[in-house]
Amino acid sequence: MTDSYAQEIHPKHSYAPIRAGGLEVPETAISLDDSPSGPNEPFRTYRTRGPWAQPEEGLPALRSTWIAERGDVEEYTGRQRNLLDDGTRAAKRGSASEEWRGARRNPLRAHPGKRVTQMHYARRGEISPEMEFVALREHCDVEKVRSQVAAGRAIIPNNVNHPESEPMIIGNAFLTKINANIGNSAVTSSIREEVDKLRWATRWGADTVMDLSTGNDIHTTREWIIRNSPVPIGTVPIYQALEKVGGIAEDLTWEVFRDTVIEQCEQGVDYMTIHAGVRLPFVPLTTRRVTGIVSRGGSIMAGWCLAHHKESFLYENFDELCEIFAAYDVAFSLGDGLRPGSVADANDAAQFAELKTIGELCHRAWDFDVQVMIEGPGHVPLDMIQINNDKEAEWCGGAPFYTLGPLVTDIAPGYDHITSAIGAANIAAGGTAMLCYVTPKEHLGLPNKDDVKTGVITYKIAAHAADVAKGHPGARDWDDAMSKARFEFRWEDQFALSLDPDTARAYHDETLPAEPAKTAHFCSMCGPKFCSMRISQDIRDEFGDTIESLGMPTVDAVLGEQHMAHVFREHGSQVYLPE
Amino acid sequence: MTDSYAQEIHPKHSYAPIRAGGLEVPETAISLDDSPSGPNEPFRTYRTRGPWAQPEEGLPALRSTWIAERGDVEEYTGRQRNLLDDGTRAAKRGSASEEWRGARRNPLRAHPGKRVTQMHYARRGEISPEMEFVALREHCDVEKVRSQVAAGRAIIPNNVNHPESEPMIIGNAFLTKINANIGNSAVTSSIREEVDKLRWATRWGADTVMDLSTGNDIHTTREWIIRNSPVPIGTVPIYQALEKVGGIAEDLTWEVFRDTVIEQCEQGVDYMTIHAGVRLPFVPLTTRRVTGIVSRGGSIMAGWCLAHHKESFLYENFDELCEIFAAYDVAFSLGDGLRPGSVADANDAAQFAELKTIGELCHRAWDFDVQVMIEGPGHVPLDMIQINNDKEAEWCGGAPFYTLGPLVTDIAPGYDHITSAIGAANIAAGGTAMLCYVTPKEHLGLPNKDDVKTGVITYKIAAHAADVAKGHPGARDWDDAMSKARFEFRWEDQFALSLDPDTARAYHDETLPAEPAKTAHFCSMCGPKFCSMRISQDIRDEFGDTIESLGMPTVDAVLGEQHMAHVFREHGSQVYLPE
Repeated sequence: MTDSYAQEIHPKHSYAPIRAGGLEVPETAISLDDSPSGPNEPFRTYRTRGPWAQPEEGLPALRSTWIAERGDVEEYTGRQRNLLDDGTRAAKRGSASEEWRGARRNPLRAHPGKRVTQMHYARRGEISPEMEFVALREHCDVEKVRSQVAAGRAIIPNNVNHPESEPMIIGNAFLTKINANIGNSAVTSSIREEVDKLRWATRWGADTVMDLSTGNDIHTTREWIIRNSPVPIGTVPIYQALEKVGGIAEDLTWEVFRDTVIEQCEQGVDYMTIHAGVRLPFVPLTTRRVTGIVSRGGSIMAGWCLAHHKESFLYENFDELCEIFAAYDVAFSLGDGLRPGSVADANDAAQFAELKTIGELCHRAWDFDVQVMIEGPGHVPLDMIQINNDKEAEWCGGAPFYTLGPLVTDIAPGYDHITSAIGAANIAAGGTAMLCYVTPKEHLGLPNKDDVKTGVITYKIAAHAADVAKGHPGARDWDDAMSKARFEFRWEDQFALSLDPDTARAYHDETLPAEPAKTAHFCSMCGPKFCSMRISQDIRDEFGDTIESLGMPTVDAVLGEQHMAHVFREHGSQVYLPE
Repeated sequence: MTDSYAQEIHPKHSYAPIRAGGLEVPETAISLDDSPSGPNEPFRTYRTRGPWAQPEEGLPALRSTWIAERGDVEEYTGRQRNLLDDGTRAAKRGSASEEWRGARRNPLRAHPGKRVTQMHYARRGEISPEMEFVALREHCDVEKVRSQVAAGRAIIPNNVNHPESEPMIIGNAFLTKINANIGNSAVTSSIREEVDKLRWATRWGADTVMDLSTGNDIHTTREWIIRNSPVPIGTVPIYQALEKVGGIAEDLTWEVFRDTVIEQCEQGVDYMTIHAGVRLPFVPLTTRRVTGIVSRGGSIMAGWCLAHHKESFLYENFDELCEIFAAYDVAFSLGDGLRPGSVADANDAAQFAELKTIGELCHRAWDFDVQVMIEGPGHVPLDMIQINNDKEAEWCGGAPFYTLGPLVTDIAPGYDHITSAIGAANIAAGGTAMLCYVTPKEHLGLPNKDDVKTGVITYKIAAHAADVAKGHPGARDWDDAMSKARFEFRWEDQFALSLDPDTARAYHDETLPAEPAKTAHFCSMCGPKFCSMRISQDIRDEFGDTIESLGMPTVDAVLGEQHMAHVFREHGSQVYLPE
């Protein structure tokens, strides 16, 4: 199994970590062929090192000593697993369908009265190894990391019980991140398949993974996933809580929910979606919607509130949740239980009433030094996207925004990775920090491995397009390396630099399979006589010197317009004057 | 062959034309199942009727009588086909690889001194049957069509020698259109395959098709395509002209080019890409680019200009081209030969110098009553897109903008339908009238049939997302019909309403293949116990009446913010007040 997950996605990729201050921060170096003008430096990209272990064994505990050395956690026996944690089938059988047999550590939690969150350290002015790790990954100053985390504008989701994870940061000032959802449902899929999807998603670039299992073996599936995950794992604990009460929303209680949260804190979940903004008075706002409530967690909580005619137990007990999260460093992902499920319902009163409430909860969590991100829509037409960023920034104090798409139209089931990537690129360019992927199966079924890959690649596109649009330092270097390789017909470099080398190569080879075509100065789009790239190269080769010697006035002089300075920022030097 | 092209893409679709004023304008009616609240009207969508004929016979000549009744054209023998029109191989063999054997009409052209363009009629205040047809298709007043065409803000590309075409309109005030490129290259593909791609592209929703063949049998491939095309056909005549001079750009002459243009006018090409904005002084602006000149036509003309140290023969002879186009009603698609081929080159001096020149040429063409659209980029980062619409509108007097994507990042070969759909949706929302599709094979090879379909569906998404964002009348009805079907678990209606029913159904069936699942109130994403849609429906059913009776204040009162009125425009009535 390991072989098929060799980390390198192309032979020109190699593991080339940054080593500094005793840390080893994974990066990939992509070796490049020579240009006509000389050799090219390897191109370096952000990467997650894992997964590389045998799934049965799990990953090494990278952060254990960092956590221990802070001296603020205690080991304890923890809550015993109850077979009902894995659902009724496991309870009957006396075991999950495939038990976790790798290492088991006792859980850690904060010493009584202590807080062990990255936000806590950051606010006290302390630089943690996690922050240093992140700063090296992001190629920025560690003080930027610390101050952004302290201000709540970025989070480093790192449960003390998930020491296997490689620290990463989510915030508008950093690279845009993407999340991949996996997880079984009552209808389909097994534990091994989910671990497989985790590894697969991470291999292609998922920055975090959410385990949204709702079927059998929930506890044990999560154990396998966390022990094998080099990226933060998120969950929606209400799903498991509902399983524990036989799927009847009315039967949920704060006690069952709290028990589930602690169970997951002890396992090492790094962030949890909590739909505490779905308050009783907001439920009526959804009844005239075209698609009502589409969030599973949101509909469960709405059902509960109405059945009991009571305020949400999540809202009522929010402070206790904060205390729990502060003891493990679990981050809130404040769930948008009332997100729109159709463009008709976008930006409506239900959605924004919840968002405003989430903003209040966010500030309350910060009082406990608990890290927070804010979930966002959903389905939103292109012209109504930016106000979501603006309202989130205003009401939630700049906490990282984490959106699902949004889909900009409802008419293309089977292609909702695309309808949503359009919205995702836009919302990320406008300030959203992390994008939850949408796969081609959205609205139709559970994603398989191919869908997971398609979703991840599509969202890497959206995230990177946003980074380029935001002018994130260094983001465009990747595009430029690709375009230079393209112009110089370095086909192998084009494959190696692409998000998905396998597909790029396969498409190329479909029409020009022969090996010499990899060095040919044309492709089958135009054929050998017509290649514009080659003609263009010829023009440069033949006339470049003559042209340079003509002398070139500035672009501003050419078109004489002040505001063109921005447009031409990349070309602000000298060009030849058209008459 | 006909069967596999049955026009209806789902059994719930039927041909349901609008009949008015002696015209029959194709539309599709999609029958819908009943809602719990009662029956649903069939949903009607824009459609192209053809292709439905045997490819060997071609389509009926819908517009022949309209053209004849205007009395402003003459039939003439026309230019004789020269076997070199089909390339050197055909010339040697004495025939194209598969001759066109269907009906051959003598070509038509304007009586000497007449102009037969839709713009000419519109400017004289005349309403043509083409305009009436278009107004019915677009559900708008015919005076809107006439005035937009008269002002140059929209075009109806309808060569008098392509009477098979169903009139359609391209302009920012109308539905956003998409173009699919097909065409062989020297390396691959046959005449039949290209006809097949035409029919396939049209079936999935291409509004126009460009035949970009550069290989053998250019003339005859085009004959097959035009005779079978219910949509306007565009070409880039410089490709064929170059074939006629053995592929050597320097050997091109105005005479060879002019002869090629007339050949194509007589065949019935509806619009032609003319790279007359690639002027000698602009060529040096490209030498410092990362990717030089990536337009084939642009590089040919740049090569010619430099080789001869002369101004472009297209620029020099532009008035004569206008006279020719006015005699057949061929529209200009003024080509962006200097469009950026990488995000690094976006919005640079070369690109905008050419666009400004194209603006001048556009106004010259209008002096001859010739219809014009303007081609646009290419590769442009998300934050640099809108200025392209703005400059085009300013310099080109509001002529329809027709862009290729643009791609918002360069790093994802194999997924450039997606990188470009992100840009396409944005540029169309900002004013672009027609989007040229990009397939997954872009930068890698020639698209096959699957790629053509993927490209078309992806661009239907981008175009529709833009129409929704622009608030185009009725655009969102489609989304709402889909979302209502989704909320009510009308699975067959969801498939029927989707852009690609086959894929939607296949994905659904992958996890829930049994027929009863089509009426099940859940899908495999969540399984039967967890479906939020169903829970939401239950909430509405159980509590709807109670909730309504509580009385609801306005949204403005809830959040008390002036500018939310726009955001909540769809919900501006009444909602329940959160505390």
